[in-house]
Amino acid sequence: MTTKFKRGFASDNNSGVHPKIMQAILRANEGHVVAYGDDPYTESAVAKFKEIFGPETQVYLVYNGTGANVLGLQAMTEPFNAIICAETAHINVDECGAPEKFTGCKLLTLPSQDGKIRVEQIRPLLHARGNEHHAQPRVISITQATELGTVYGPDEIEAITRFAHDNGMLVHMDGARISNAAAFLGTGLREITRDVGVDVLSFGGTKNGMMFGEAVLIFAPELAKNFKYIRKQGTQLASKMRFIAVQFETLLSEELWLKNAQHANRMARLLAEKVKDIPGVEITQSVDINALFVKLPKDIIPRLQSESFFYVWDEQESIVRWMTSFDTTEEDIEAFSDLLKRHLQ
Amino acid sequence: MTTKFKRGFASDNNSGVHPKIMQAILRANEGHVVAYGDDPYTESAVAKFKEIFGPETQVYLVYNGTGANVLGLQAMTEPFNAIICAETAHINVDECGAPEKFTGCKLLTLPSQDGKIRVEQIRPLLHARGNEHHAQPRVISITQATELGTVYGPDEIEAITRFAHDNGMLVHMDGARISNAAAFLGTGLREITRDVGVDVLSFGGTKNGMMFGEAVLIFAPELAKNFKYIRKQGTQLASKMRFIAVQFETLLSEELWLKNAQHANRMARLLAEKVKDIPGVEITQSVDINALFVKLPKDIIPRLQSESFFYVWDEQESIVRWMTSFDTTEEDIEAFSDLLKRHLQ
Amino acid sequence: MTTKFKRGFASDNNSGVHPKIMQAILRANEGHVVAYGDDPYTESAVAKFKEIFGPETQVYLVYNGTGANVLGLQAMTEPFNAIICAETAHINVDECGAPEKFTGCKLLTLPSQDGKIRVEQIRPLLHARGNEHHAQPRVISITQATELGTVYGPDEIEAITRFAHDNGMLVHMDGARISNAAAFLGTGLREITRDVGVDVLSFGGTKNGMMFGEAVLIFAPELAKNFKYIRKQGTQLASKMRFIAVQFETLLSEELWLKNAQHANRMARLLAEKVKDIPGVEITQSVDINALFVKLPKDIIPRLQSESFFYVWDEQESIVRWMTSFDTTEEDIEAFSDLLKRHLQ
Amino acid sequence: MTTKFKRGFASDNNSGVHPKIMQAILRANEGHVVAYGDDPYTESAVAKFKEIFGPETQVYLVYNGTGANVLGLQAMTEPFNAIICAETAHINVDECGAPEKFTGCKLLTLPSQDGKIRVEQIRPLLHARGNEHHAQPRVISITQATELGTVYGPDEIEAITRFAHDNGMLVHMDGARISNAAAFLGTGLREITRDVGVDVLSFGGTKNGMMFGEAVLIFAPELAKNFKYIRKQGTQLASKMRFIAVQFETLLSEELWLKNAQHANRMARLLAEKVKDIPGVEITQSVDINALFVKLPKDIIPRLQSESFFYVWDEQESIVRWMTSFDTTEEDIEAFSDLLKRHLQ
Repeated sequence: MTTKFKRGFASDNNSGVHPKIMQAILRANEGHVVAYGDDPYTESAVAKFKEIFGPETQVYLVYNGTGANVLGLQAMTEPFNAIICAETAHINVDECGAPEKFTGCKLLTLPSQDGKIRVEQIRPLLHARGNEHHAQPRVISITQATELGTVYGPDEIEAITRFAHDNGMLVHMDGARISNAAAFLGTGLREITRDVGVDVLSFGGTKNGMMFGEAVLIFAPELAKNFKYIRKQGTQLASKMRFIAVQFETLLSEELWLKNAQHANRMARLLAEKVKDIPGVEITQSVDINALFVKLPKDIIPRLQSESFFYVWDEQESIVRWMTSFDTTEEDIEAFSDLLKRHLQ
Repeated sequence: MTTKFKRGFASDNNSGVHPKIMQAILRANEGHVVAYGDDPYTESAVAKFKEIFGPETQVYLVYNGTGANVLGLQAMTEPFNAIICAETAHINVDECGAPEKFTGCKLLTLPSQDGKIRVEQIRPLLHARGNEHHAQPRVISITQATELGTVYGPDEIEAITRFAHDNGMLVHMDGARISNAAAFLGTGLREITRDVGVDVLSFGGTKNGMMFGEAVLIFAPELAKNFKYIRKQGTQLASKMRFIAVQFETLLSEELWLKNAQHANRMARLLAEKVKDIPGVEITQSVDINALFVKLPKDIIPRLQSESFFYVWDEQESIVRWMTSFDTTEEDIEAFSDLLKRHLQ
Repeated sequence: MTTKFKRGFASDNNSGVHPKIMQAILRANEGHVVAYGDDPYTESAVAKFKEIFGPETQVYLVYNGTGANVLGLQAMTEPFNAIICAETAHINVDECGAPEKFTGCKLLTLPSQDGKIRVEQIRPLLHARGNEHHAQPRVISITQATELGTVYGPDEIEAITRFAHDNGMLVHMDGARISNAAAFLGTGLREITRDVGVDVLSFGGTKNGMMFGEAVLIFAPELAKNFKYIRKQGTQLASKMRFIAVQFETLLSEELWLKNAQHANRMARLLAEKVKDIPGVEITQSVDINALFVKLPKDIIPRLQSESFFYVWDEQESIVRWMTSFDTTEEDIEAFSDLLKRHLQ
Repeated sequence: MTTKFKRGFASDNNSGVHPKIMQAILRANEGHVVAYGDDPYTESAVAKFKEIFGPETQVYLVYNGTGANVLGLQAMTEPFNAIICAETAHINVDECGAPEKFTGCKLLTLPSQDGKIRVEQIRPLLHARGNEHHAQPRVISITQATELGTVYGPDEIEAITRFAHDNGMLVHMDGARISNAAAFLGTGLREITRDVGVDVLSFGGTKNGMMFGEAVLIFAPELAKNFKYIRKQGTQLASKMRFIAVQFETLLSEELWLKNAQHANRMARLLAEKVKDIPGVEITQSVDINALFVKLPKDIIPRLQSESFFYVWDEQESIVRWMTSFDTTEEDIEAFSDLLKRHLQ
């Protein structure tokens, strides 16, 4: 086994597929089924989602997170609208302008130290409403868990959704790591999404042990009316849909989504425990989920990266990001903290 | 085994994954590799493509055919351009307007009995050139094999590409079934694409035995300059890219692409042979690849569909489409032709 | 006076501004008024429109016909929709793909000999409805009078609007020459638009004696809800709006719209009368409004153009277009028919 | 004369048309000329622009500033690009998201106290370059004079354009008030645009005494290659173009552009002089051009507005904006400063 196959802490996207999910894919590879989602696997995956989120939930499987986010946002907006989000939001920073290209909307970004946004920051943006010279705020998009590894409490979400709905706006949640957030909070998935007023959720599968596939869950039925066309025109309708569906069916069964997330979160806490007292290591964000943000001495970083690659999050502040995954082991953490100690002590 | 798992003739998208490709996916599921394509599997798949199409070929793996087509077209156009294609083209009929949404361009469609277009039809459209009131023709998009199961000869393609290039235009090829076309012609893949002047090719994988994945092959290097941004912004950049890459690596090794296509084509010819003399059956197109277009007595169609589903292609003309696949067996054909005979004789 | 200032028959866009309208512009150039339409001139122009079309009519002044058409269509569609129109429609042929760029929609075009489309042609397109692979027909756009100088009768329009509404669709009318159509029919403007079910009308001003300015009239109130944002984002909100408004106020007063149109129509009929018996002249369309379509001997055309420019409509068929205008005189027609006779007899 | 026709200080858009320009419009209203810009008036206006900006300048007349800005930006970008500008930029704040809708690009905004941006702020944004996850910075857009009434010196502009070009980027200038900037600096128009490296300029006409009309001036010839299609598809091609052209011809003759701007600037300085010592009045920006930004006691503002309307610029900071115009008189200023004194003393 060469270096390139070692597990590391660069990204939960660098991990592979959970064995149970791979087994399910194998099982689904039998005979012919109707393409584009009119098949029993998709029916079953949709039923699982409805079991968890309630029977009125509209479920659309797509390929990836960018697709889930931009199509969800398209369903909620017209081109003259503005989408409010944190400066650090994935939709603002990491999707190469896909939201603007797909929706035509302006992103109104709010500064955030911890990846969260608050109603007090949003309120002044309503000033623009009714004035045709300004893009009209229509959607608040929050990420749960945030890009900085922090988690909104249900009450924090509800404060935002209530404000949004009171002001004729909608709430989108980028849930690429929604399972990790629920695992951290000890709640179900529904309690931190639909039950607290979220209108559209990008439900993440890939980072939590799937090969590919995310789901757009629409809780406000009128927003789902034309979503099948939006998905197709948006290039996100899979022909051999069964292979996304069977992954979700498995992830949502026997709480695999939760077990994977709990494990990844626990590994991050363990890593934090192991490294927090090493001189030169400063953990800069609360370790809620499977991410550590760590300030390191600048000159050390390239040396560490050459032995076990990870990303620099903030060049200027010398902050790096370490992600754990469903398949991270205690040995991985032991080895990585030893590496750190070797370079820092 | 229930009805829903039976193999049928509705679509090559209804088939599953070739066993060798599934094995490769399993093998690739080991350890961590860098996400988004900076991994050894992708490197290897790209090398395979370059081996076949030449080292200057630029290779971009994407999720599906709609994605490959619209992003390829976006790389070739500006919004004030027109894209010329057959009325029957998949990009015109079956992508819910995705080309217009992604590129802003107008599609100029040409009538076609057999799915092909010819230079004589295209020439009059150049009349619009230089006149700012008209969308400016920039790309000719042809499908190989066509949506009607016919195949352009290399000389037919070259006539179009020469005309295009002589007139400052580019040629896009929708190659969702390019392997079937090459199998029919008995040529290599390069001889009917790059060598005859095609600029951008959507190379199909899914219909030929893959789980998901298509490739955009760019032969005109200047068109590739910004394609990585177009792919990302277009929602078609896979995070766990290795799982697309390893499929292509396998499909392109030991001529699996050719064997699968040859088999599917052979099965279609066999089916044609079996049914052509059944009274009431009229084959309306040349059976070049894995598709049969058949005129049937109108009242028979729903009864056949209820036993083995397939799609009506032309309601008015009472023409249906039967597709074979890499996994179609002689028994399937025997059973289906028996079914036909039972209903027609 | 040089050649370039002579009146000709190339286009009603080549004429200038009616003296009464120019006087009104001069009168409006006094003091300061609030920009962007919150001024008494705009109030008064809107009131005139409501007087004619009914008080619930929503009125939005814009710069030009392309703007009126594409923004009206944007208000009626989502990007996955299709817009049905004649192949000859201005929105299809003469706006450089603006409808596709602005709306993301596909245009579904119908062949037409006389510029009109009929329900029987539209009906088969509904086949696509509900199938996510196909752009969803949502708007039927008709031109009144058509680009071929013909006029829909009120009953013909109503047949289309009834069909549209019965099938969950809307009707857009490109009324760049709506006044000429009403003048021909001897009806009011409302009887051939709102009263027969049109939902959104592009009301033409420029070709009928204005300097610049068209109006989007929205008869279905729910379509107007966000139009002010669509107009602004669409670059069609004029800052010194009063100068569009006062032109419309004048055009709509004392039936100037009708007088101008009647005059232009009469001049076209007179021209037809004068030329119809000249050997080699063949009038190919009914002369309903201010346009003549005339088949001429091919070699004569450039010679005529060099003395009095006009456009070739159909190169292949050797058909040219002659337009009259609000300012065409009997002397102009006399001179032009003399010119013809000189070259043809 | 009623209240609504009084001159005020709300906006230079609230003024009418300069008498010389109106006379020119009248003169141009004679006979027929070819529509869409192929006429002697447009030829002459273009020649005037080339006289001032150099013969290689490409000139495109459009209707308004939003049109000039978004089409200029479209000519400089692809949808995956980012456009860098001040948070206060008109293209960011006052165009209802038109740049995003037209270009698909992301706007990257920089904080600014005085409306200007600086190279030090821009440099960190280049970090994103080459990384497909991030929108790629391509254009720096600056406003001259800024929305806050300040003016970039030629050296400040050159610092930005040199940085842009050194880094493969382009510079767009929103010159809605470029004449006022030149008047302030005492330079020609070319010295602060083309000569210091600006690539595309929106040249403002409406706010400086025209009825309607702006010009897109393209100094980098390769950016102009397809601009005529961009203008047409962007709804900004005027049919009776002569009426924009003749206005520009007049504005650019006998330095009318400069005289108008100088007058408006002088009136603003005079107003500043008159009010600066009134207790409660605090001028917050340098009065370079025809704009004053003034902090006032909050409760006074509505009372002043009811007598002579103007806009609040910053509700929170209680800052208002007063604009002078080419037609502002010393009496207007006297009256307005009396009004202020009445309310504040």
